Amino acid sequence: MKKVLIITGGRTDTDFVAEAYKEYSPDVVIVADRGVMAAKELDIIPDYIVGDFDSGDTTVVEYFKSQFEVYGKPMVRTFNPEKDETDTELAISLALTLNPKEIVLLGATGTRLDHTMANIELLYRITESGVRARIIDEYNVISIHDKEITLKRDKAFGEYFSLIPFTDNVKGLNIRGAKYEVENYILSSGSSLGVSNEFMKNTVKISFDSGILILFQTSDERLDLRGKCN
Amino acid sequence: MKKVLIITGGRTDTDFVAEAYKEYSPDVVIVADRGVMAAKELDIIPDYIVGDFDSGDTTVVEYFKSQFEVYGKPMVRTFNPEKDETDTELAISLALTLNPKEIVLLGATGTRLDHTMANIELLYRITESGVRARIIDEYNVISIHDKEITLKRDKAFGEYFSLIPFTDNVKGLNIRGAKYEVENYILSSGSSLGVSNEFMKNTVKISFDSGILILFQTSDERLDLRGKCN
Repeated sequence: MKKVLIITGGRTDTDFVAEAYKEYSPDVVIVADRGVMAAKELDIIPDYIVGDFDSGDTTVVEYFKSQFEVYGKPMVRTFNPEKDETDTELAISLALTLNPKEIVLLGATGTRLDHTMANIELLYRITESGVRARIIDEYNVISIHDKEITLKRDKAFGEYFSLIPFTDNVKGLNIRGAKYEVENYILSSGSSLGVSNEFMKNTVKISFDSGILILFQTSDERLDLRGKCN
Repeated sequence: MKKVLIITGGRTDTDFVAEAYKEYSPDVVIVADRGVMAAKELDIIPDYIVGDFDSGDTTVVEYFKSQFEVYGKPMVRTFNPEKDETDTELAISLALTLNPKEIVLLGATGTRLDHTMANIELLYRITESGVRARIIDEYNVISIHDKEITLKRDKAFGEYFSLIPFTDNVKGLNIRGAKYEVENYILSSGSSLGVSNEFMKNTVKISFDSGILILFQTSDERLDLRGKCN
């Protein structure tokens, strides 16, 4: 029942990575590609390093390889840059072999929105395997849900929560305890109705009959993760 | 056959907005909510202003209202902040009444990824109306496609292009002229296969039998829009 943290190569504020690492206190750390830089800066010795390192600093990879003598880790897995999977996907494939309870992704967002979006797609692959999955950055906690969601205000990451359909439609949607409530609603692609909802009660319940939802817990200000990661 | 530019309230580098405004040279400018700040800073007199201005500076809105005396514009449309549509969606609804040929969205991306994602969803609403639509920011040009796409290297915005399925599946996908080619492929949610493709020939052809694709033209460096916006 492991908690796996993947640090990947997007824009990563190292202070935020440090805070998330401390709050989440993972059992296993996997770094992918440029994620090695953040790990090195923060003196985190990863358990595994994966990637082609076409964009990473090879001296950092060599440094971590040398740590294997001391710590018996990390295991470095180098892949050919001409590949079908992104480095993040390789890290997820590895994480899923470790019998995880949950996988958290840091550095999965950034200026390249194609990568951000692909990483949200990859959350689905994890969720589908029955493993809890979250992308966390300074302003957003993103997760994918195929069943009922219960949110608690005192455990919520942000002041807002937003629902975007991952499948073409989410049918029979009920939102209770929120500022904007719906009952037996069909949430379809192309609408912004699910954006920026807020808590009205301490418990918000979101249920639906079919489809898959992307849940964003967001804030206009930098998120404070303290006491919320478990 | 108008070119409509919508400047909305996400993170907007004003230098980039200025460059995009100049390169795109729109017939109509609509600003939504915090987009008014960028317009004011750049001395752009919008044709329309929409929003609840709960997050905008009301003195800026008053300034623009006073400009109506001089320019006969902008038309300011104020909405109740308790509403089902985001300000961006209101701006799009207005834009679609203007018989546009194309709508470009600036300020549609930023730290709040729920807004970014909802704005990508809204691109679909525009495309579905038969109007060309693009989200442009410093690193990405995003569009949605329900038919064949032809990309020219000398007109491409970025060095990479990525395809993410907007519908659950895109079937019968062919990519020709690219580094990673596929033939009669099913691109499904949860894969990162379509990410970071590159030109091999000057023309890349992307065709598919069913489904809808999101196309990202992206770069690791700030995009240079010169000569590419038309």
